Amino acid sequence: VRVQVLGSAAGGGFPQWNCACSGCDGLRSGAIIAAARTQDSLAVSVDGQVWYLLNASPDIRYQIESCRHLHPRPGAARGSPIAGVVLTNADLDHCLGLFSLREAQPLVICATSAVKKALVEHNVIYRTLERFPGQIHWVELEPGRRVALRTPDGTDIGLSIEAICVPGKAPQYLEGLVAPDPEHNVALLIREARSDRSLVYMPGVGGDAPEVRRLLAAGDLVFFDGTFWSEDELSVLTPGARLAHEMAHWPLAGENGSLEVIRANCRGRCLLTHLNNTNPLLRADSDQRKALLRAGISVAHDGMELLA
Amino acid sequence: VRVQVLGSAAGGGFPQWNCACSGCDGLRSGAIIAAARTQDSLAVSVDGQVWYLLNASPDIRYQIESCRHLHPRPGAARGSPIAGVVLTNADLDHCLGLFSLREAQPLVICATSAVKKALVEHNVIYRTLERFPGQIHWVELEPGRRVALRTPDGTDIGLSIEAICVPGKAPQYLEGLVAPDPEHNVALLIREARSDRSLVYMPGVGGDAPEVRRLLAAGDLVFFDGTFWSEDELSVLTPGARLAHEMAHWPLAGENGSLEVIRANCRGRCLLTHLNNTNPLLRADSDQRKALLRAGISVAHDGMELLA
Repeated sequence: VRVQVLGSAAGGGFPQWNCACSGCDGLRSGAIIAAARTQDSLAVSVDGQVWYLLNASPDIRYQIESCRHLHPRPGAARGSPIAGVVLTNADLDHCLGLFSLREAQPLVICATSAVKKALVEHNVIYRTLERFPGQIHWVELEPGRRVALRTPDGTDIGLSIEAICVPGKAPQYLEGLVAPDPEHNVALLIREARSDRSLVYMPGVGGDAPEVRRLLAAGDLVFFDGTFWSEDELSVLTPGARLAHEMAHWPLAGENGSLEVIRANCRGRCLLTHLNNTNPLLRADSDQRKALLRAGISVAHDGMELLA
Repeated sequence: VRVQVLGSAAGGGFPQWNCACSGCDGLRSGAIIAAARTQDSLAVSVDGQVWYLLNASPDIRYQIESCRHLHPRPGAARGSPIAGVVLTNADLDHCLGLFSLREAQPLVICATSAVKKALVEHNVIYRTLERFPGQIHWVELEPGRRVALRTPDGTDIGLSIEAICVPGKAPQYLEGLVAPDPEHNVALLIREARSDRSLVYMPGVGGDAPEVRRLLAAGDLVFFDGTFWSEDELSVLTPGARLAHEMAHWPLAGENGSLEVIRANCRGRCLLTHLNNTNPLLRADSDQRKALLRAGISVAHDGMELLA
């Protein structure tokens, strides 16, 4: 499986538009050793000709232009190599980019029924993706069922996908409106048909669970939720801010942190993604980054090209 | 009035994500003399410390990071110099960026009642801007009434704004759902209180009208709809595509084009913005660009700093 890291930051990116914390301000001024990051998204392919995006971030236009593989072929006016998008949840940092893919291009969108519902129902702006019959072909992901990824005209691209419910929650804009539903947040297990090599993508993991451990062991290449280093990372900076677990993210450090579980269960290569602008791992010279490397885990960065 | 051009392209930007026309492809490959453009937006200020955005494009995160004046002040964790946003219509290329301004920052949004309704009603994702009481302070623009622009805490920033209905239409995602309403598309007349210098911003003008001519004469600095050079610009490339006037944009060239009306009525400096990726004006060496310059009109470009 060919993988392009399009974005590796949590919602808001790094730096964040209205934040002048030591990280965001240090990045702008050059005072820290760190790289700018757009919001979490991957592109996957077998042949490098046809691609699927995993999540559609608000930075999608910039991300597509930054990745030459995703440019339309010369001579083909509407010939984008992007066949479709798979969504892991309906958070705006994973979905808002869909509304930037509206120029006369048929697309497949794969999502669970709960995620589809959050976007399509009760959002009149979704009609921008209904400009012509067949513009969006929805594929409903049933947890645990493996389906082949296809182009809008039905050609199998050589990858299968399976959605697995992992701890999470409904997007913030639905809070108080919908009942908890495990299908609001899934991890993705993607397998290449001809080689059986596998990619696991889980940018949002709210806590430990048997499925999470199974997925860590299943992937040749694993992208894991690196949002927060510690549980109280936000409230240390902004008194009253929510804890990591209240935002459905499992912090890496600490006695019950994800780091130990990753190390104990992951058999392939593990990269962290969806890093929040407060995460000390953003700094290449932080003690936390050194500890991570010693544990054999890396931080994904925008523009990375990988092979699962 | 201090003005920063944040973006100068029509919806989709230049290049467009799925387009490999001679312009988009030529820009990517370096075969043409042209600059990349993000989607149409301006920032305005009197003192350079407090700013208002005119329209909120999908490229907003990139645009804010590209403009040092809009960075939060060091030491102020949530100290964005952006006090608010004024919307000229509810088209997604002018509004989608609002959903990227959701991180614990009070903001003023100024719009007509029809534009506010399009966004707030029937879009559950709008709740992302209702995370805490007072997050968004809406100012309803009544056409023809001049109001002072203020920070969310009520401080007058020294600019007044007046919305004027100009020919246009409802956003495409509302087609068939709402009755035509002149308040779906407005131009903005912005005056500096202490100097009475004025900026006119009209990125979407569907055709000739007395108000348009009056506004052309009223501005010391005028940004005008430069979407299409000719009426059949799209259908020449893509048979069956809509004509300029069907998309509520007044083409520049031709016997009844806007160029002659601009030249006859504008007394200040005029810049074109909201250029579509098909517009020959995008090429710095095109005959059309030369003709424009001979008429005393310029093309706005991303990053431009101006004083009205």
